[in-house]
Amino acid sequence: MRKPKVVIIGGGFGGMFTATKLHKLSRGDLDIELISKINYFVYQPLLPEVAAGTLNPQDAVTPLRNLLNGARVRLAEVTDIDFDAKQVILLQGQRKILQRVDYDHLVITTGQVANLSLFPGFEHHSLTMKDLSDAYRLRNRVIECMEMADVTRFPDIKQRALTFVIGGAGFSGVETMGELAEMVDRILPEYPNIQRHEIRLVMIQLGNRVLPELPEHLSTYALNQLEKRGVEVWLNTGIHSATQHAIYTNDGRSLPTRTIVTTIGNGPSEFVKSLPIQLQRGRIAVNAELEVIGLSNVWSIGDAALVPLNTDQENPLYAPPTAQFAVAQAELLAQNILHRTRGQNLASFTYKAAGIMASLGGGRGVAEIYGVRVTGIVAWVIWRAAYIGMLPGLATKVRVALDWLFDFFMPRTIVYMAESDRPATRYLDYSQGEVVQYANEVPAGFYIVLSGSLTQELEKDNGEPEHHELHIGDSWGSRALKEHRLTHGKITAREDTRLLLVNSGDFQRLRSSYKPFNELLSAGNK
Amino acid sequence: MRKPKVVIIGGGFGGMFTATKLHKLSRGDLDIELISKINYFVYQPLLPEVAAGTLNPQDAVTPLRNLLNGARVRLAEVTDIDFDAKQVILLQGQRKILQRVDYDHLVITTGQVANLSLFPGFEHHSLTMKDLSDAYRLRNRVIECMEMADVTRFPDIKQRALTFVIGGAGFSGVETMGELAEMVDRILPEYPNIQRHEIRLVMIQLGNRVLPELPEHLSTYALNQLEKRGVEVWLNTGIHSATQHAIYTNDGRSLPTRTIVTTIGNGPSEFVKSLPIQLQRGRIAVNAELEVIGLSNVWSIGDAALVPLNTDQENPLYAPPTAQFAVAQAELLAQNILHRTRGQNLASFTYKAAGIMASLGGGRGVAEIYGVRVTGIVAWVIWRAAYIGMLPGLATKVRVALDWLFDFFMPRTIVYMAESDRPATRYLDYSQGEVVQYANEVPAGFYIVLSGSLTQELEKDNGEPEHHELHIGDSWGSRALKEHRLTHGKITAREDTRLLLVNSGDFQRLRSSYKPFNELLSAGNK
Repeated sequence: MRKPKVVIIGGGFGGMFTATKLHKLSRGDLDIELISKINYFVYQPLLPEVAAGTLNPQDAVTPLRNLLNGARVRLAEVTDIDFDAKQVILLQGQRKILQRVDYDHLVITTGQVANLSLFPGFEHHSLTMKDLSDAYRLRNRVIECMEMADVTRFPDIKQRALTFVIGGAGFSGVETMGELAEMVDRILPEYPNIQRHEIRLVMIQLGNRVLPELPEHLSTYALNQLEKRGVEVWLNTGIHSATQHAIYTNDGRSLPTRTIVTTIGNGPSEFVKSLPIQLQRGRIAVNAELEVIGLSNVWSIGDAALVPLNTDQENPLYAPPTAQFAVAQAELLAQNILHRTRGQNLASFTYKAAGIMASLGGGRGVAEIYGVRVTGIVAWVIWRAAYIGMLPGLATKVRVALDWLFDFFMPRTIVYMAESDRPATRYLDYSQGEVVQYANEVPAGFYIVLSGSLTQELEKDNGEPEHHELHIGDSWGSRALKEHRLTHGKITAREDTRLLLVNSGDFQRLRSSYKPFNELLSAGNK
Repeated sequence: MRKPKVVIIGGGFGGMFTATKLHKLSRGDLDIELISKINYFVYQPLLPEVAAGTLNPQDAVTPLRNLLNGARVRLAEVTDIDFDAKQVILLQGQRKILQRVDYDHLVITTGQVANLSLFPGFEHHSLTMKDLSDAYRLRNRVIECMEMADVTRFPDIKQRALTFVIGGAGFSGVETMGELAEMVDRILPEYPNIQRHEIRLVMIQLGNRVLPELPEHLSTYALNQLEKRGVEVWLNTGIHSATQHAIYTNDGRSLPTRTIVTTIGNGPSEFVKSLPIQLQRGRIAVNAELEVIGLSNVWSIGDAALVPLNTDQENPLYAPPTAQFAVAQAELLAQNILHRTRGQNLASFTYKAAGIMASLGGGRGVAEIYGVRVTGIVAWVIWRAAYIGMLPGLATKVRVALDWLFDFFMPRTIVYMAESDRPATRYLDYSQGEVVQYANEVPAGFYIVLSGSLTQELEKDNGEPEHHELHIGDSWGSRALKEHRLTHGKITAREDTRLLLVNSGDFQRLRSSYKPFNELLSAGNK
């Protein structure tokens, strides 16, 4: 007889633990396959330490294949699910052909994604802290800003480079800021032209305290610690928007910066939204047995799912999107799937969190464990010990422990890997008065005006200034790129403006390869 | 009195050691600045171990600022030198403005770059092993190929994914292949659908032996070791060209592969070529005192320079481009610059290499030290000990030693970081008969034919096949991208063909932003 096949989509806490637990419980009775877009498990609570350079990027993650011996791992992207045919449709490998994979049981544990569309400009001008590459990108950005600030002779560029903003003061925001503050202090001596008071670390929080998930006095402690380390915390402040140059708040403040990290605004992924299943509060509605409402043998847990904790219609209570709950759900789900295949009864999900804790960087933390509240170095040591304990895989435990040990004795590394993953075309937002380009710069590429308008200041042959306006549909940069010369006009946004920038190398390749495009540019363009 | 200013371009062995030595000798009498495009020193001999995942990428490098206390470090790109005005012209920071930096003494130590233009297609379809990012990219590529091969159901794709080719069997080629062979053996158990015999490791060498810099019997030993580990070594074989699908040799053989690493064909950088100075054998001509011929107080050492070792006009002898020689030259250069500023006599460069050695991976090596030849595990231990000793900076030494220790006890990590630095537009080469796309694939982007021609096979409504030819200037993919549908014809190269591929995301952004371009595409395109 063919073994029942369980397909799990997603390799985070929920998916990974469901696979391992199911493999253990089923003793080979099930055929288990985990499908993931990345081939490793990310231990998200450690990402702030990757961003701060305490941990080597590879040490905060564990290859899924190492963790799931017994379950198969497929590196692929699921594009659709055919619930009638009980098939998952995916893209994988080199030839991008849609393939179908059969399932008897399906587990959807794809988590949530950062939803940046809430704040204009954030999609183009902010970093997130979801994945390993995010953390690594932030680390490189901070060092890049330090290097730039060290050599520039323009005060406004220096100020912008040395202002680091984090949106949101929940766990991810506070831990990231704590680590960032420590990093900045430690690498500062390497940069002779930067003083500590020139660096601004700003945290913007809509509510009236940091870490709102914790009891109030722990929030107060955390706030004091952050402020003591030179972090400005803007409480009761809503974020409005971001541009290439600055972040804007709802109360009308603006802060020039190149580095904005968003830790707020989570939502369902495009994939989950595209499925013909019921979403509630942006999450997949499941029953207490973790089965998706309206579907049979389709399950969902973790951040992607809305798991009820009570049956009170008036005051419904749901599991929070944390790793602890995902792991507890995975335990139950493995049992429930097994019981279903054996025709046994399913159990409902109940769980009480053991504790809650956060690192503040610099050897300080806050924790509440079984109702006991701890702060300072003790909380921080508990935090580290607990995380080493929870890390999956011995190799990862040892690597993380060694990195921590090493960090005590050795300088924090400032190796800067240039950001190589900038897409060739990207959107840039500017507010009124912000300068897009100065004269005599090496042109960044070819610009197209998508909304708003700009002023170009040129100098006439007789030295007098001349002004041009640029409107929607206008473009510039083509000639400067073609003739390899510097920009020759200062260009400023006249209002809120969005541009598309095509990087010079790609623009040149496209122009020289595609004759009609070249003719188009030669015909009418600036 | 103003201190004499020494500007050093390049932070490799030559530049870094000149700066530290000069700082030590001059006791503050000189103003020293090192300009580098990257902010870290790369210990190149360790790159193969980064490529094989033994070393964490950041551990094989040391931040320049940590090494050069006393000398300034500027992260910038030198674009030109004004020898008359004694100024270096550079681009730095965020605003790309050309800046001038004065010097009294200038040291050019920019090394060499991989010259891939010798072999058609290599610029677009081969990897190099020059920098940290190259090594990291190769490591990711190998894991990507293993992941692809594990899931594909197409034998030709599997074969291509599992064939790894290295061009050149000098130090870099042999050490890279040795490490690669070890890596493949160690990670293979994680991939249940791949057998060892399906993996081909091929090394292509023009000469009749590997490691031609070493005595013949050490070459023979190295060859045997490599073959024992399953590496095919094609001796006396010239490389002809590469395409998206395969590598071609001069004797008419072809080998389907996705991974070609080139370790041959070094040449001067575009920057060095653009300078108004004399190049000899592709290197900067200097005299025995290391001063550039024809210029005063401009010096060059390391791989960039052609340093004479004798005065025999008939049989001139030059320093080989190795780290050992660069370090020895840096020692002398620091003295000579100091002597010049003090009006003292300069010394000529003489040096005899202490030894020469190579790792073969898997705990095997070859070495010749002061004339004594050593092989096997002894040579390998000497190799490791010597490299730990030569690594600059205590932190780096400790990190590398820990990585090595760790690698003994723990599995090699297979964390795969998706290649995110693919440019949005890239050239693709194909030979006659190679398939560019099949029907029913997700389209990769918009294609433009730059040379050669192709056949598109379509199916008519009545099911009969229909053939179209695509010629220079033709393009395709626009409609499939616009309508989000799959490709609908198989496209095959009819002869040697070069395409430009514009990635779908960038193409869509450009099309939707730039109205004339959209009209152009809608007007006449397929």
